[in-house]
This record gives sequence, C-alpha cells and structure tokens, in this order.
Amino acid sequence: MPKMKAAIFVEPGRIVLDDKPIPDVGPLDALLRVTTTTICGTDVHILKGEYPVARGLTIGHEPVGVIEKLGSAVQGYREGQRVVAGAITPSGWSNACLCGSCSQDGAGMAHGWKAIGGWKFGNTIDGCQAEYVLVPDAMANLAPVPDHLTDEQVLMCPDIMSTGFSGAERAGIRIGDTVAVFAQGPIGLCATAGAKLSGATTVIGVDRIPARLEMARRMGADHVVDASRGDPVRAIMDLTGGRGVDVAIEALGTQATFEGALSVLRPGGTLSSLGVYSGDLRIPLGPFAAGLGDHRIITTLCPGGKERMRRLMEVISSRRVDLGAMVTHRFRLDDIEAAYELFANQRDGVLKVAITP
Amino acid sequence: MPKMKAAIFVEPGRIVLDDKPIPDVGPLDALLRVTTTTICGTDVHILKGEYPVARGLTIGHEPVGVIEKLGSAVQGYREGQRVVAGAITPSGWSNACLCGSCSQDGAGMAHGWKAIGGWKFGNTIDGCQAEYVLVPDAMANLAPVPDHLTDEQVLMCPDIMSTGFSGAERAGIRIGDTVAVFAQGPIGLCATAGAKLSGATTVIGVDRIPARLEMARRMGADHVVDASRGDPVRAIMDLTGGRGVDVAIEALGTQATFEGALSVLRPGGTLSSLGVYSGDLRIPLGPFAAGLGDHRIITTLCPGGKERMRRLMEVISSRRVDLGAMVTHRFRLDDIEAAYELFANQRDGVLKVAITP
Amino acid sequence: MPKMKAAIFVEPGRIVLDDKPIPDVGPLDALLRVTTTTICGTDVHILKGEYPVARGLTIGHEPVGVIEKLGSAVQGYREGQRVVAGAITPSGWSNACLCGSCSQDGAGMAHGWKAIGGWKFGNTIDGCQAEYVLVPDAMANLAPVPDHLTDEQVLMCPDIMSTGFSGAERAGIRIGDTVAVFAQGPIGLCATAGAKLSGATTVIGVDRIPARLEMARRMGADHVVDASRGDPVRAIMDLTGGRGVDVAIEALGTQATFEGALSVLRPGGTLSSLGVYSGDLRIPLGPFAAGLGDHRIITTLCPGGKERMRRLMEVISSRRVDLGAMVTHRFRLDDIEAAYELFANQRDGVLKVAITP
Amino acid sequence: MPKMKAAIFVEPGRIVLDDKPIPDVGPLDALLRVTTTTICGTDVHILKGEYPVARGLTIGHEPVGVIEKLGSAVQGYREGQRVVAGAITPSGWSNACLCGSCSQDGAGMAHGWKAIGGWKFGNTIDGCQAEYVLVPDAMANLAPVPDHLTDEQVLMCPDIMSTGFSGAERAGIRIGDTVAVFAQGPIGLCATAGAKLSGATTVIGVDRIPARLEMARRMGADHVVDASRGDPVRAIMDLTGGRGVDVAIEALGTQATFEGALSVLRPGGTLSSLGVYSGDLRIPLGPFAAGLGDHRIITTLCPGGKERMRRLMEVISSRRVDLGAMVTHRFRLDDIEAAYELFANQRDGVLKVAITP
Repeated sequence: MPKMKAAIFVEPGRIVLDDKPIPDVGPLDALLRVTTTTICGTDVHILKGEYPVARGLTIGHEPVGVIEKLGSAVQGYREGQRVVAGAITPSGWSNACLCGSCSQDGAGMAHGWKAIGGWKFGNTIDGCQAEYVLVPDAMANLAPVPDHLTDEQVLMCPDIMSTGFSGAERAGIRIGDTVAVFAQGPIGLCATAGAKLSGATTVIGVDRIPARLEMARRMGADHVVDASRGDPVRAIMDLTGGRGVDVAIEALGTQATFEGALSVLRPGGTLSSLGVYSGDLRIPLGPFAAGLGDHRIITTLCPGGKERMRRLMEVISSRRVDLGAMVTHRFRLDDIEAAYELFANQRDGVLKVAITP
Repeated sequence: MPKMKAAIFVEPGRIVLDDKPIPDVGPLDALLRVTTTTICGTDVHILKGEYPVARGLTIGHEPVGVIEKLGSAVQGYREGQRVVAGAITPSGWSNACLCGSCSQDGAGMAHGWKAIGGWKFGNTIDGCQAEYVLVPDAMANLAPVPDHLTDEQVLMCPDIMSTGFSGAERAGIRIGDTVAVFAQGPIGLCATAGAKLSGATTVIGVDRIPARLEMARRMGADHVVDASRGDPVRAIMDLTGGRGVDVAIEALGTQATFEGALSVLRPGGTLSSLGVYSGDLRIPLGPFAAGLGDHRIITTLCPGGKERMRRLMEVISSRRVDLGAMVTHRFRLDDIEAAYELFANQRDGVLKVAITP
Repeated sequence: MPKMKAAIFVEPGRIVLDDKPIPDVGPLDALLRVTTTTICGTDVHILKGEYPVARGLTIGHEPVGVIEKLGSAVQGYREGQRVVAGAITPSGWSNACLCGSCSQDGAGMAHGWKAIGGWKFGNTIDGCQAEYVLVPDAMANLAPVPDHLTDEQVLMCPDIMSTGFSGAERAGIRIGDTVAVFAQGPIGLCATAGAKLSGATTVIGVDRIPARLEMARRMGADHVVDASRGDPVRAIMDLTGGRGVDVAIEALGTQATFEGALSVLRPGGTLSSLGVYSGDLRIPLGPFAAGLGDHRIITTLCPGGKERMRRLMEVISSRRVDLGAMVTHRFRLDDIEAAYELFANQRDGVLKVAITP
Repeated sequence: MPKMKAAIFVEPGRIVLDDKPIPDVGPLDALLRVTTTTICGTDVHILKGEYPVARGLTIGHEPVGVIEKLGSAVQGYREGQRVVAGAITPSGWSNACLCGSCSQDGAGMAHGWKAIGGWKFGNTIDGCQAEYVLVPDAMANLAPVPDHLTDEQVLMCPDIMSTGFSGAERAGIRIGDTVAVFAQGPIGLCATAGAKLSGATTVIGVDRIPARLEMARRMGADHVVDASRGDPVRAIMDLTGGRGVDVAIEALGTQATFEGALSVLRPGGTLSSLGVYSGDLRIPLGPFAAGLGDHRIITTLCPGGKERMRRLMEVISSRRVDLGAMVTHRFRLDDIEAAYELFANQRDGVLKVAITP
C-alpha cells in the first residue's frame, strides 16, 4: 500500500509529520495530490487540545491540488485538473443542503454538535496537511482553478476568505452602511474586505496589533481603532457621532470582542459573529436593550462547496480585493512542525503560511 | 383647565387613579377619548419599580378610543372617529422610520436606551390608562376601526398581538416549519397564533400553567409541553425526532426560556426573542455550537403605526384567529387599582383585562 | 431483458401504453416500482405537441413508489422503502443547486431552454407513467413517505402542491396580505391553499368554472370571482375598496390571466407567475405604471428534492390543508389512454386522476 | 406678493422661464431657496408632451438649497441650513410608507397611476427649477448637507444616483455576481457604479455611444459592449462563457433594452428595470423560458426621503464613487431654456447640467 506524508494529531501539544497510507477512493470521492495548503487558527485549537479530534487524524482543511484519481461515479472532471475545495464540504444531497443550510450537513461530528457536521476535513475525516487528501462528494466540492490564478492566490478561498466574507454577506450590509469589525486577524481582515466590497461606506477595523491595523487599512478599513489604547466602544461611538454602527462583525471568539460588537450597534443593527468561542458568552443587559433593540445576532460557519469557491475566485480574478499580502511565510510540508510553531505563537508578524508538499 | 382621571405612577408599588389636566393638542397630535384600554406585563414592571419611569406619568400604552380633537396640521381624520393606536408610536419622519426601524425612533427615552425610543406612551409621555390620551404624530398612528369590530376585538392589536405576531414574522417562518414557543402568557399565545398563521405545521407551546397550555391549543399549538413536569428541551427533541426546531420563540424574558429556546434549535435555526429581560443573559457554549451553528438570534420590539394596526385588524376581521378569549376580566377605570392587583398577581386565571373609562 | 409497461409519446396527439425494457440502475440512481402516479397539464401540452419531447420517451413526472433497486453509491435507503420524488429532480451537486437555484440545474433539456433543465422526468429522461422509473441522483430526491400517509395523500406533492405553494412562498406573502389567484385549476387551487397557509387574510380566487370556484372556497378562498360574469379586475378592485392586492398569483399561463394579475396589483405589489405560457406576453403600460410601480414579477418552476417533499408531507400530516378532494378519478395504468382522454378534455369535472400500475 | 423666477410647462414643446409668486408655507412644509438643481430625462418627456402635467406647473425634482422658512410644525431644522431633498418626497406617515413602499404614497397623481404618487415635485406640485421650492412633509425629506460636500457633489443624490443605485440594491446583488447594465445614460452609469459597489465582480456596460462607454469604465464597468456594433446579447453570452448574468439592469425604457436584459439572464436571474417605458412591453417566450426560469423582474421608482439622501451622501463622502464627472455643463437659471435645448437634444456630449438660480 503506497504511503504519503501527513501532519497528524497525536495528543494535545503534538502534531507531527508521519507516514500514512494513501487512501482508497470511493465512488463519490476524488483523491487530490495537494499542491498548496495552509494552517488555520482552528488547527491551533486542535493542537492545544482545545478542540478535540481523534488521535491519528490528519489535520488541515484548506486544500489546493491536482486531481489524482476520481471515484467511479464522479463525472465532469478529469485527472490532472487543478482544483480547490472548501474547508466545509457539503454533500449537496442532504436535507440540510437542500434547505439552504449547506454548512450544516453531515451525520458525523467530533464534538457532539450537529451544528458543525459540514466541517469534515481535519475534523471528522482526514484533512489536507498531507501529500494527498480524499475529497468526499467530489462533484459538489471540486472547483477548477482558472489558469491565470496561482495556488497562493486561491489559498484563502477555502476558509479565511469564505468565512470573513460571509460575515459581511449574512449581515445584509447595504450601500451606505457603517460597519465595525472586531479583530483583524486573517478572518477579520477578510471580513473588512468583504464589508467594503458589499457597499459599506464607513468600515472601522479594531485590533491591538499595529501591523494588523495597518493591514486593515489595506483591506479597506476607513478608520482603525487600536483597542490597546482605550475603550474601542467609546472610540467607535465617537467616530459615528453617537449613532453606532449598522453592522458589527465579531472575528475572534472572545467575550470582549462579542460584547464590544454588541455595544456599538445602533438600534435595529446586526451583530455578525464569526468567532469560535471557547466558553459561555454573556449578553450584557444594557447593550442588548433588555431584548427590545430589534437587534439580530447571526452566527455563520464558513460556507463551502464548488459554487462558493467559484464565486470567491471570481472576486480574486476581478482584482476587487488582493489577499495575496496575507501569505507572510512559506514552508515545505516537511517543515510543517516549524510552521505550526511559528503560527501558533504568532511570531514574526505571521498572518498566513503557505505549505507546499 | 378641564380635568380627567388617569392612572399615575407615584412610586414603586403605587399606581393610583388621580386627576390630571386634559392635555393641550399640538399641531401634529390628536386627543383621544379612551373607550377601552388594558394593562400590560410591562406596566407591572413599572409598578414594581423594575422599569423606571418619571413620577407622575400616566401609565398605559394600548388605547382604543374616539377622536376628541385633531391638531391643526392633521389631515385625513375627523373628530368622533373611532380609532386604535399602537403601543409604539413611530413618527414616520425619523431616520429610523425611513430606514425600516420604525420601532426605534424617538429621541427621548426613560431608560437610557435609544433602542426603545419608539415606545412613548406610558414610558416617555403620558399613556392611556386615563379618560383622554394625546397621540403624537397622529397621521402615522391613528388607525380607523371598522364598524364591525368591537373595542374588545381590537384591544390586543396595540401590543400583545403586534408583539406576538412579530415574533413569528421576524423569524421568517416558512411553510412546513416546526416552531416552539417558550411561555404561553398573552404574548406567547399570540406568538403561537402567529406561528400557525405563518404556515408552521408543527407548533409546540411550552408553559407551566395548565390553563395556559389549554389556551395554547386553542391558539393553534399542535403539541403542548408542561415545563413543570420535566425538561422541555428533552420533550421537544423527542417530539421532533431529535431534529430540533426551525424556529424557537422566547416570550417571557428569563434565562431559562432563552436557554431552552436556544437548546432546541436545529443547526441553521432562528431564535426569535420577544421577552423583556431584567438582567444579563448567558449563552451556553454547547447549544450555541461555539458560534458555528449558523444560528440567528433576533430581538423585536412591538411594531406600531397605523398600517400595522390596519393589518392586524384585517387578521381579526378574517377570523383567522380569535383572540377574544384572552380578555378574561373587565373593570371600570375607576377600579383600575383593583385591576392592577389582580393582574400583577395573576389571580383568577387572568390573561388580559379590559378597562373602560 | 425484463420488460415493463409505460406510457410513451409517439407523435403529437398520441401517447400510448407500450412495453419497454426495465432500465439499468447507475451508481447514483434508484429504480422505483411505481405504485401511484398522475397526469399533469404539462403532459397534455406534450400530448398535443405544444411542448416537444423525444419520440419514445416515457411521460410523467409525479411518482409515488417503492424502491426496487438502489445504485451502488446510494446510501441511506433500503429496498422496499416507500418513497415519493419531486417532478423536478435536482442533483444537489450542480452549481445551480449550490447557489440556491435548485430547479434550474441539469445540462440536458428538450426545449433549448437551460431554464428548465431541472425538470428531467418525462422531459429529458423517461418518466413515471410506467411500472418502473429510474430516479437520478437518488440521495437528493427520494423522500420516505410516513406510514400514516397513503399514496393518494402525497400524490400532489411532486408537482401540483409544490408548484402552487411556491407561488405563495416566492411572493413573500405576509400576515394580513390580500392575495388574488387567477385560475383555480389544480395549481391555482394549491396556490390558494398556500396563500391562506402563509397568512394572507383575504384570498380571492378567480375562475370561470363554478365547480372550481366552489373548490377554491374549500381550499381557503375568502371570496371567489367568476370571470365569466364580468371583468375580474373590476370585481377585485371593488372587493379591495380600490386598493388592489398585495400579491397576485397567475396559475394558468395566458395573456388574460397575466394581465389581470398585473392590473389588480397595488403599487409595490408582487405578481407571482406559475403558468406555462405558450407565446409572447404583453405587459400593458398602464397596469405596469410605465415601469415605476415598484412591482415585482416573479416566475417559479416547481421546487423539487427530498427536503421539499418532506416539508410538503409535513403540511399534509398536520392537516393544515386537505388536498385529497382534488383526486376526482382513478385509473389503472392499463387504462391510461382513457385517463388522458378524460383529463385532456376536462370531462366530468376532473381535477386530478390517480393512476395505479 | 413677492415673485420668483421659475421654469414652467406651458404646452408640449414649451417650458419657459417666467415669474410666479413665492409660495406660502404650510405647517409641515419648508421653503427652500434653491442653490443648485438640474434637468432630468423625465423633464424632457414632460417637455415633449410624452408625460402629461398641468399647464403652469413648475418643473424639476432635484433640489439643493438653503432653508428659507420652516412650517410652524416643523422641528429639528433651522433657517439658513443647507439641505438636499429627494426627487420623491414620501410623507413618512402614509400607509404606503409605513409598509415599506415609501416611493408609492401620495393621493394625487398627474397620470392616473397611483403607482407614482410619491413623485410630487414637478409632477403633482410645483418643482425646483425655480428660485424657491416648497418641500412637503419637510421633516421626512430635508437632509442636511455636510459642509465638506459642494452642491454639485450632492446634485445627483435626489434622482440619478438614488435611482441608479436602487437598480443594484433591489436586485439583491451578491458578492461575485456578474451584472449587465443596458444603457449608460446618467441612470445607467449610476447603476453601473451601484452594481460595482454592491460586490458584483463582473460588470458589463452596454450602450451605443463611445463616450458613454468610456464613462461606464470610469464608473466601474469591467467590460463594455457597443450595441451599435453587433448584438449585445451575443456579446454578453460570449463574455460569460454562455452562462449569462446573475442580474441585468435596464436603464433606458425601451423594448430593445428590456428584451436584451431578459435575454442575457441566467436561469434564476433577476432583471432590475429602471426605465420609464412609453408603450406596452413584449416579453418574448424564449428568454422568459415560458415562465419557468425562476426569473424575477423588478421595477423600482427612485427612493426618496432624508435617510436615503443621508446614505447617498455617505457614499459620496467615502469617495467610493465619484459622480462629479457627470456634470458636463453649467447654466444660470436665467438660461434654463438653453439648457433644455442642449439636454433634450443630447448635444455636446452632455450627461448632466447644473442649474444655479
């Protein structure tokens, strides 16, 4: 049985590169030879044991690659074709998919939550920090990459860009809206870009790291607020003349950012939450207006599927946004443990790394 | 200066009937002679001092009456006309109104929350538990009552029905949805009726009082769950075969009902919150799926304005729902202190009282 | 090769029952043994040569049956299971499906219109007026029928009910709306039921046949207008006090009904069009307000897929509507030519026929 | 009685500058001293007698000015304040406004169409091509102009920008959409800008005049199609690889542009119609897919009101779009007849003119 290299979760604190069999291809699957992938903040949660997955699982959910082998029932693709697949891999045929909750299908889940069943790579099935990855329901998930786009140009599509943009999309941003984005890590930066792309005319980026605030401006923020220098809620209320914002996007997953986002909402405003929280949240009575503020709190799991990937690649092709600057470091798959060390500790101004097997 | 009788907030624990001058009529106002009004749960919060209002304020926000005098700039009405006005009285001309947040206009507010500025009667201006009430922005707020409807038939329109129905409407209920309504007081009962009217095919009413569960069935609940007999979350998950509900409506304003509503949501489901909370809320991590469940939490303040009243009266005229059974007791305005005593203590199976000056 | 009986299009004017091989089962397919099916108005268009299909094609797109054989890649079902499939059979994995246009996938089409590619049965592949039918993309399309529902109870789900209800759903009917439904054939009757189920408080049914108007009342119409007795536009404007309707549903596919529906719309209203037109349409300038009326004209092709079928069966189980009375005649498959003769000529008050192989 | 100069409709073919009394100010009105206004294509329809208005009516519906006098019931403004008002002046308090159809209120109308009752200036009441104009329902309609914006910078807000942008907004453009805009006059150019601002990643501008196609590129078109050089439908199908567009915007009001827009729609796509048509329209069967294409045809009348103006000025302040280049010519009010002559005959590359009393 042929072998491949793969980044495997061993135990909290240890993800190691090891040999694994190249998987067999079921009728609906496709086997990809991974050409570029990356590490996500969620992978760091797995590394630290904060998000439990099975021991021996291959980690990673952001694959760009070339079709090595197609399942017997898969039509419409050819071996050798360059493709990208989303972090979330909807089947297309589940009831969840067919009623518009494409991210929420999937019977299996590691965490006891049906609500993230659509996230399979590196969660309930082997992921793509490896030489090869098996893509389930290939016809719903493989999106051909146009020749004029490089692997790195589409590397943000599977998760960061899809998640960040969805924060703007699900909030229903309208032309002329004022939007605040709490936290400017990779997802927050994409939310900033997505808010601008949706017609927001005042986008306010919040973070504590000057380099990220600088990047926020490049992604379209009209104003940036350094939360390490004072209360960002007050700063935003001042910037908006006391009116508050139409939409606040939470992109970190902490009580402070959630509460900040709620506190700057105008009556009738929308809090779009993207973060992965690690404990109970508190909704403070005042900013919540005791439940009488006509507010909406919307949570979103990264949208996936080939049509989503197609759309995001359209955005990149159109040059409306340039996410290329977010890849700050590059590693060979052989050096992925070093990549984790850098990324998990946010050393050296890292935003995203590119991993090439 | 002519005098009238009015129910006045004196101090926590004391609402008394007293004499007050009949107010002057500004150019945009209308003076109504109140023919029927009622007491709301919010009034009980005021009585108990849980929701602060100015001393001397006339309480009450659910007026049916006859136009006594029109402001000089008011057109399209005639004195003597029978009308109803919503609990929330949008101006029509505010920026909030003009961007679709009609409940959220109004500069003044008793509570320091802009978010309830649209609620004026018995909150920031004198209310309608009185012989006369001044309606601001009359052209936006006075809805003529068709002759074939009695005062009591439209008495639920200003608040209870508008609020309860909005819980169903804002959730975006679709034909075939399963909906759970937590708490079956007057607002929850209207939410139950509204969910059924919106096409939900399985409506589940939750409460702890058998008489209210019985009324829930009359309002359209297909199933009722007595929360005093066991965990309602488990009961609802059993009723739905483990699937959960598409929409859960919270209609009480407590941690337990909020948490129950969140816990029974399917991935991608919507929590529509109507309750007035009296403290911080906690969002438990599991039911919230750590923020990854594609959930929506939507809060709604009672929609007002004459078009809203017109629509609700259409519903009553169509006999799609019959809210008449909710008026369980009747009092003269002179006896309003006794009415408060009954209603605040929920004696004698009271749901709603009719007060006639 | 085993044979089966099937109703086959031979040439305009001739659909005959003939022998055909029972089809082979591909990996994503399921073979159903048809237990009940029906004839649709569209089949009559095919019979008359108004809608061209390939000679030799088996007609019919409304199957209830039992799984005879599952494709090798199909999971989650068992042979012998009773199921229903929609008239439209989305793949689930197409780009159209994944962007929310589930009725519009499918590469092949008989008519040169991509826009009806999702309609395959009896259009681009063999249909279900036969002893057996092959269901493509079985996992997206087979909906198990609950034991407590008979074949006839779910026989309207694949097309008539799904189409008619979608006319109400896509129009965005709100509680309190006034809705007119032009034509009360099977689809119009289901639109009437769907409008009522969506919260419309005044539903007006229009037709020229008294028996259909009578049935319209049973389906929920508050008023009926006999178009053979005068101008229905005037009648509806009178019924609405000159206001017009919020939503008008067109359910026949003629210039007269389309124009009538447009003419009764209030400014800002929605025309929901379900009919299959057979020639160019004319939009008259006046009712269209020269393009300045904030009107919406929405066309809808029958939604399909197993989740849609599940929802519609929920409606039937809930007893919110009773479509049973629409099956007016019953035939054996052997007598399907007689059934066509009756149905195509609308003899004997026929609404829908049940065909049992 | 003091007099002012005003451009008055005399008879088809004649709009003349003449003296008129400065109007009295009612309690809800404001009198503006007009500082800048412009001429609209609709005014040319009036001039030519194609759109009937009363003889003696002052024409013009795009006012920028200074508050000269406030009605007795108007609060929140001060005399001397610089403001802009929309072409459509909703009351705020009508049923139409309160149910979200703000452009469609107003009892009076010149044309027998209720559907344009919200358009009052220069249609049912005196307009703003004059030294003074009376603004009805001033509190709903006067939007203060920020000091950093010039009159000319906000001159497109009342009509052209509001209408053009609404073509994009009402179509529900999503990030990654492909949009075609048929005709690149002032409204089409604003629709092009609005489509880009809404996240469309491929915007295709169609016209027959090279200078307008060049301007289309400046407004954000990724591709332009010269309809004088061949069939634009074929060109757009080629540009989209045969897929068609998600949204097509019609911005001229002719059969050819309407039909072109319909013909390039993908199944499930939306035709957003902005043009003012002057005769019946024909919907061709094929592009309409016989009514089975899940298409939407949406017409929109220019949104007005002070909140709309505020939002549009936010867009201008944000520098997301620059409409300044659209003002190609400038005239004194005294020379307005010459301005009409130029504009009506589209001489000298005119797009929009600025008129200053």
